[in-house]
Amino acid sequence: LKENPDKLPYIKMPDSTRCYMDIDETIKDADIILIALPSQIIRKTLSEISRFNTNIPVVCCSKGIEENTGNTMAEVIEKSLPDSKVVVLSGPSHAEEIGRRIPTAVVAASKHRDMALKVQDVFMSDKFRVYTSKDVKGVELGGAVKNIIALCAGISDGLGFGDNTKAALMTRGMAEIIRFGVKLGADRETFSGLSGIGDLIVTCTSGFSRNRQAGILIGKGMSAEKAQQKVGMIVESITTLKPVFELSQKHDVEMPITEKAYEIIYKHKNPGKAVEELMTRDKKDE
Amino acid sequence: LKENPDKLPYIKMPDSTRCYMDIDETIKDADIILIALPSQIIRKTLSEISRFNTNIPVVCCSKGIEENTGNTMAEVIEKSLPDSKVVVLSGPSHAEEIGRRIPTAVVAASKHRDMALKVQDVFMSDKFRVYTSKDVKGVELGGAVKNIIALCAGISDGLGFGDNTKAALMTRGMAEIIRFGVKLGADRETFSGLSGIGDLIVTCTSGFSRNRQAGILIGKGMSAEKAQQKVGMIVESITTLKPVFELSQKHDVEMPITEKAYEIIYKHKNPGKAVEELMTRDKKDE
Repeated sequence: LKENPDKLPYIKMPDSTRCYMDIDETIKDADIILIALPSQIIRKTLSEISRFNTNIPVVCCSKGIEENTGNTMAEVIEKSLPDSKVVVLSGPSHAEEIGRRIPTAVVAASKHRDMALKVQDVFMSDKFRVYTSKDVKGVELGGAVKNIIALCAGISDGLGFGDNTKAALMTRGMAEIIRFGVKLGADRETFSGLSGIGDLIVTCTSGFSRNRQAGILIGKGMSAEKAQQKVGMIVESITTLKPVFELSQKHDVEMPITEKAYEIIYKHKNPGKAVEELMTRDKKDE
Repeated sequence: LKENPDKLPYIKMPDSTRCYMDIDETIKDADIILIALPSQIIRKTLSEISRFNTNIPVVCCSKGIEENTGNTMAEVIEKSLPDSKVVVLSGPSHAEEIGRRIPTAVVAASKHRDMALKVQDVFMSDKFRVYTSKDVKGVELGGAVKNIIALCAGISDGLGFGDNTKAALMTRGMAEIIRFGVKLGADRETFSGLSGIGDLIVTCTSGFSRNRQAGILIGKGMSAEKAQQKVGMIVESITTLKPVFELSQKHDVEMPITEKAYEIIYKHKNPGKAVEELMTRDKKDE
């Protein structure tokens, strides 16, 4: 039980790690609760918690937008545990590298500054640098929507396009994430940070990203369902795509790349055709 | 003469391409002048032009800061050819991929909007998308300073660090480019665009980047001089590093990554030690 050979092979957990089958027992004596579940099962899981210490940080490492409600993960946690003080921990931080003690930097965002500082204190080391932020919404939206752009970066790679194409896609993708985030109340500056462009970069370029891997398969002609099966883990970009697309329509935010991704995944649009349409839009100012 | 087997192998130039040995003859009947020279020889080269049509765009594809003067390339051109109407063309656009007609998007920036629009018209195709911008300074500084961050990304790779490290370096590198650029009069938003983060991404992650290649060698322990020789072409980041560092000191801009790069290249600081110092700076807000 001190290693997870499927999901994180060759990384030994500390001997002090304990596993529990009961959620109330898990958090009974906790100083910090850390949540790292797939986005769509957080609400159900937290509904099983009967009581908890409201004076400790609840650290959210999950990224995504809840279907139907359009809630971010911190919002889901706050609604499920009304007295919780949520800290969102986000940034370019593939577990495969953190486990090998490769230098990594992230951001801890909270409306409760004391809780953000506590998380910074506990997690900071000479290999893991933690910055603090107040902009929970911006940190969360960056982390969630970037997965959609990573899916598209994978599709571009799968179609055989190059580094130029992917960099353009990431840049214009970031522009639409910013438009979306600012409309929903986030600070523009947050998206230039570790949880925004930083996480976008690592997710779009790293071999470890499941979102990108699924995109590559789709770019090569596989259906979204088959690509998910082949990747073998939950592909957050595909579950997040629908609520993000719906929110963009509702708030009238122009998101051409997200829209094409939606058409590819949910309307079976040909990926090559989608890229061609993006490249031949009207001439624009940047 | 219709191929450059050393610098751009397997890419055929159009039959209509002509080469001249005399610069006045080269530009005599030009509709557009396009300059793509190493940054430190532009002033000398342009001094040989005796007269030119002042009603055509002079398109600058060179990136860098001139030593001693601290001028950007557009500033060098404007000072050398006082009546020129400069358009800076910049963005994630490795020639190796453009030559293979891989989808690419760039920005054309000029104080003269009619010239920017002309360049957009002439260069735009279904494989090459051109946006326009007014912020010449921002586009140029993004393109120049990003090479320093790419050098550092290479050093990180050469030291054996991972995708997390590089993404953090690029994000914090972008933050210092923005501080630097805004202090020198650029618009903050430009750095979120193709010429800023877009070009940073492609330069830090692509195998084609000479700046990154030089960095990898330095990270593995080679001296800066030997690394330049081995890469075999001019490494713009190393020539740009000194004027950028000096400008940052003069204008009192905090640029910790540029400072470490300067110490590595010009003071023989150990690269591993430099990374350790960056990771263990004071705890900060993002």
